[in-house]
Amino acid sequence: MAKSIFYHAGCPVCVSAEHDIVNLIGVENVELVHIGEDRDRIAEAEKAGVNSVPALLTPNGNVLHINFGASVADVKG
Amino acid sequence: MAKSIFYHAGCPVCVSAEHDIVNLIGVENVELVHIGEDRDRIAEAEKAGVNSVPALLTPNGNVLHINFGASVADVKG
Repeated sequence: MAKSIFYHAGCPVCVSAEHDIVNLIGVENVELVHIGEDRDRIAEAEKAGVNSVPALLTPNGNVLHINFGASVADVKG
Repeated sequence: MAKSIFYHAGCPVCVSAEHDIVNLIGVENVELVHIGEDRDRIAEAEKAGVNSVPALLTPNGNVLHINFGASVADVKG
């Protein structure tokens, strides 16, 4: 199975959701990307349709925005 | 593993997210509950902390609100 990508910004909501997602789908099935630190990947996240973090990009290209930690605009700013 | 519960209301956003969640965690690991039809379970969802649908209640009791289809208040109304 292709990997999902979990975009986050290290916020408490993000960390909590990350633990849940890893428990649910398995750490081997998801790449974890901290767009607050790995800023080169902000544009990639936006292009994929990520408007807020935490968000999970599924292997088929859908974005699941999970709860609400921070807008991507705030992470960029 | 205990099952997760996916609460939804049949809306397009809900159906799309349901497909994604089932693909990611496996249909055998999630109970699907339509609170628009199975209205007896609205109170249960609210008690678990579900504010909007679609939402996934994890086995350890966390609620992951996924994108936004409808508020539970609107489903009740």
